[in-house]
Amino acid sequence: MGFMPCGVITLTTDFGHKGVFAGAMKGQVLRRFPAARFVDITHEILAHWPDEAGFWLARSFRYFPDGTVHVAVVDPGVGTSRDILVMENGTQLFLAPDNGLLGWIDRDGDARTYRLDMTRLADYDIVDPSSTFHGRDIFAPLAAEIASGRIDPAQLGPPAGDIVPRWQEPPAVNGDTISGVVLTIDTFGNLITNIDAALLDGIDDPLVVAGGRQIPLHETYGEVAPGEYLALINSFSVLEIARAEKSATEGLGLGRGAPVLLRPAG
Amino acid sequence: MGFMPCGVITLTTDFGHKGVFAGAMKGQVLRRFPAARFVDITHEILAHWPDEAGFWLARSFRYFPDGTVHVAVVDPGVGTSRDILVMENGTQLFLAPDNGLLGWIDRDGDARTYRLDMTRLADYDIVDPSSTFHGRDIFAPLAAEIASGRIDPAQLGPPAGDIVPRWQEPPAVNGDTISGVVLTIDTFGNLITNIDAALLDGIDDPLVVAGGRQIPLHETYGEVAPGEYLALINSFSVLEIARAEKSATEGLGLGRGAPVLLRPAG
Amino acid sequence: MGFMPCGVITLTTDFGHKGVFAGAMKGQVLRRFPAARFVDITHEILAHWPDEAGFWLARSFRYFPDGTVHVAVVDPGVGTSRDILVMENGTQLFLAPDNGLLGWIDRDGDARTYRLDMTRLADYDIVDPSSTFHGRDIFAPLAAEIASGRIDPAQLGPPAGDIVPRWQEPPAVNGDTISGVVLTIDTFGNLITNIDAALLDGIDDPLVVAGGRQIPLHETYGEVAPGEYLALINSFSVLEIARAEKSATEGLGLGRGAPVLLRPAG
Repeated sequence: MGFMPCGVITLTTDFGHKGVFAGAMKGQVLRRFPAARFVDITHEILAHWPDEAGFWLARSFRYFPDGTVHVAVVDPGVGTSRDILVMENGTQLFLAPDNGLLGWIDRDGDARTYRLDMTRLADYDIVDPSSTFHGRDIFAPLAAEIASGRIDPAQLGPPAGDIVPRWQEPPAVNGDTISGVVLTIDTFGNLITNIDAALLDGIDDPLVVAGGRQIPLHETYGEVAPGEYLALINSFSVLEIARAEKSATEGLGLGRGAPVLLRPAG
Repeated sequence: MGFMPCGVITLTTDFGHKGVFAGAMKGQVLRRFPAARFVDITHEILAHWPDEAGFWLARSFRYFPDGTVHVAVVDPGVGTSRDILVMENGTQLFLAPDNGLLGWIDRDGDARTYRLDMTRLADYDIVDPSSTFHGRDIFAPLAAEIASGRIDPAQLGPPAGDIVPRWQEPPAVNGDTISGVVLTIDTFGNLITNIDAALLDGIDDPLVVAGGRQIPLHETYGEVAPGEYLALINSFSVLEIARAEKSATEGLGLGRGAPVLLRPAG
Repeated sequence: MGFMPCGVITLTTDFGHKGVFAGAMKGQVLRRFPAARFVDITHEILAHWPDEAGFWLARSFRYFPDGTVHVAVVDPGVGTSRDILVMENGTQLFLAPDNGLLGWIDRDGDARTYRLDMTRLADYDIVDPSSTFHGRDIFAPLAAEIASGRIDPAQLGPPAGDIVPRWQEPPAVNGDTISGVVLTIDTFGNLITNIDAALLDGIDDPLVVAGGRQIPLHETYGEVAPGEYLALINSFSVLEIARAEKSATEGLGLGRGAPVLLRPAG
């Protein structure tokens, strides 16, 4: 048990695809660790919004191999006094700014989190990092050293203690009514909420209310006619509002942060 | 001859880049087959339109190595009773829903197509797939097993028999006049049609008519002045309408499905 | 010293992500060189604008390993008589059309540039390239041969002599006033100029003027309140105009080519 690097490094950022930012990070990794294998999780996190990155990372890391190093750079505080965290969660490892992003990762009893000691970067040949692109100048070199097995994450700094919590409150539960929000929107325009599947267990014949509309629960998109709205527990185990073969976000005029209510149909 | 896996897996989807869908598929592959090498063909297929994916895949697979596994997930019927196909076409292999997508792949005498036996997924340790993301839960694990050589595709299910045909009719040929449509549009705004180069062979001094405009045939973009329209047989051997250094789709106001006529200039 | 291939190939293009162009190039490389490792620098260069590709490549190649082959295809003249260049710059190698793109790469005394001899392509099994996609039909096969070590770049053609210079003039320096332009815009809406950090050295208490606004210099984004404008020397050592946690390009209404002045605040 514990973290044993497998050579896979994932990237989750808000860099988009216009610039050379993700490419420069990969180049920096390859200079130190030529055998690195990369997977881009997404570079289209809403700019400067760590919560969206944390949500997606928390919901997707389990589909990666043991030993994966996940690097998440959504970092409006780059170059200020914000810290950098190194989190071992069972068999995988996460590198991210201490800005709420890693507040989404469930930590079991075995998890350990360290606060990067910035005074010792030169020990890893990290010198003169820029003030505006720690992704390339600090995160990438560290990921290479960890993924190659040359650095033991536990040596990178002291135990983190309290970390910055996620920005978005969890859903409010009042009896059998749950109040959540839309956290993110996918390419299809599906509205993905922060309401975990487990919250539906106690609700009899649940109904979703969003955008002034009552929306029935189904198993999959193809169960309703094209153009009809449906809610479902999606493949990442959260409540999602969709419109069959159309965009729910366009149809309902709802976006990130929109309230979503779940209550018994009764 | 026949399919011998080389370890390369390509992805063609309508997932876009906002979510974590393609990344989660790659993670699932790497869990089973750490040596997999990925090529993203495109993730920007028009949502829920298998024909565009089938067209591009049919026109590009020949540029990949023998032994490549091509996974195409444009899958509006996910979780319903639609089948999954495994197609060997000479030396390469295709995995896709049976929804018309693979109707674009030319099958010669050696080609074999199988219909995945969904009752035997547990034999490959595929258990409890979600109802909404077979890309991650079924296609990716199967691609890993096939690309690693552990599964013989012929064992995955019975011969497919008739498969769902492509949605788009081939061009109509009336004497020396050909009526086709715009199938897809690239980043440059070039209009790419379903009219194969071979159809032009019998036409004397051919002229293209689209958007009420007569458009001359050329060899390459640089042969006309910037801003002028031209038609050409593109590098994927189909008729394309372009505007030198500009967007033909914006200039002509034409998009997918727009009619394109080819006739003698006479 | 000199170029020794390491197996890494980068791609910089204006292909976007809608088509299969970058994927087809990678497939062609893998057919010849199965061990190739790819890094996408960007595929979102402004269509037909080699200068943006040249700028980004010049500013990012130093973050890649020695022995990297950089392929840059922004090629409005494809299929016309424009030449193809092979440039060795110290320990890395660049392949691009001779259209100004490589005019951005600084060449020291050791650099060597060759003009591809198109009459000898058949020697490398490059036959019947299309007129419209040399990226797939010429650049990719050559990159594979070079990155695999099978071709010595010096054998590809005669010394290039004069190459097409960059399109964008360097900034004008008048006493202690510098006049530059916005060269590119990143996903965050930051305006990235052609004013190199070194030009600021002689200026006392420098102030940036753009869009009719006076903008102070800072070290990093987090030093000003969200919504405020700032200028900084970015992590690629050029002057950048930003708006903390917002888009400067939207806020100022400025885009590529917009003039940017740098002068003493005095």
